[in-house]
Amino acid sequence: MTITRHILPGFPPSASPSPHAVEVDGWVHLTGQFPRDLDAPETPLPLGIAAQTEVTLRNMARVLQALGLGWTNLVSMRVYLTAFERDYDAMNAVYAAIIPADCRPTRTCLGVGRLVRGALIEMDCVARR
Amino acid sequence: MTITRHILPGFPPSASPSPHAVEVDGWVHLTGQFPRDLDAPETPLPLGIAAQTEVTLRNMARVLQALGLGWTNLVSMRVYLTAFERDYDAMNAVYAAIIPADCRPTRTCLGVGRLVRGALIEMDCVARR
Amino acid sequence: MTITRHILPGFPPSASPSPHAVEVDGWVHLTGQFPRDLDAPETPLPLGIAAQTEVTLRNMARVLQALGLGWTNLVSMRVYLTAFERDYDAMNAVYAAIIPADCRPTRTCLGVGRLVRGALIEMDCVARR
Repeated sequence: MTITRHILPGFPPSASPSPHAVEVDGWVHLTGQFPRDLDAPETPLPLGIAAQTEVTLRNMARVLQALGLGWTNLVSMRVYLTAFERDYDAMNAVYAAIIPADCRPTRTCLGVGRLVRGALIEMDCVARR
Repeated sequence: MTITRHILPGFPPSASPSPHAVEVDGWVHLTGQFPRDLDAPETPLPLGIAAQTEVTLRNMARVLQALGLGWTNLVSMRVYLTAFERDYDAMNAVYAAIIPADCRPTRTCLGVGRLVRGALIEMDCVARR
Repeated sequence: MTITRHILPGFPPSASPSPHAVEVDGWVHLTGQFPRDLDAPETPLPLGIAAQTEVTLRNMARVLQALGLGWTNLVSMRVYLTAFERDYDAMNAVYAAIIPADCRPTRTCLGVGRLVRGALIEMDCVARR
């Protein structure tokens, strides 16, 4: 069985010691995405959950696209919020506006204590080629 | 590869913008289950971790059954608790009473900050047809 | 489809009501690993994130080895920290020293509120035979 560890050209390295994605037998796991600017990764994160959700999803879309995938390939998604009660509804509004209804993956959303670089949101997903 | 997004008749919509389950090639991912009453989803959640664990597992069983699956199909489970230290043992007692020993999936249990609708517990799973 | 629930000889039972690993069709899910001493599971956990990360990864390696697997089989990993801000960099240093760069799985790391037995860290993974 071949396990392909994707380190994508044109992307900054993962914040963690990890490839951008790992693929086996058509299943593609993505490393957690957060709202950094992929073209200027050291700049401060955008302010507010709406902007952070949008950037996180755009980053995820860009990773998927670089792998020849798109929203239609999504199977499951996890969403992590550091201010769940305050941000849950606003995150969902952006999420539902960006991911078409007929592509939506299963989802679990957790309120967590802390995320990389103090982000308000992180998301990871499993897709299927 | 066909990705089937299950929106189950007779169930209230997911609390999040997501189908109830997504299936590919025999693998079935479930959206996070929490202790709402599936037949009266807007009523308050039951009180206490024992009741909430039981309702959450009964809801999961009902989703699995609607998909033609059961406990024997479970592969992995994640349990999220908002009062881990207080509730961990009582949750485990209910969990072990409901899921037969020879069906149990892998498990990770996390203490989290907040869950949808202020639930004490949420669980998601991956099953295999 | 055969689902194999691995309860490994020579290992203490999982802290939770779960097998050590569940395998289907070459996919192997591991129950969450934490920094107990597998040969003396009731002794106190080691002090500090560096030691706890190392023991957790050594325990995971031992489970993988008992299944005939190794780091090269890793697909995805989740890391849970109870003191994210304090421990993230030190955890990553140990992680990157133990898991060779060409074997690294996708990763998501979350700051959580509480873990089993008050551990500073827990990790779970999905591997492919």
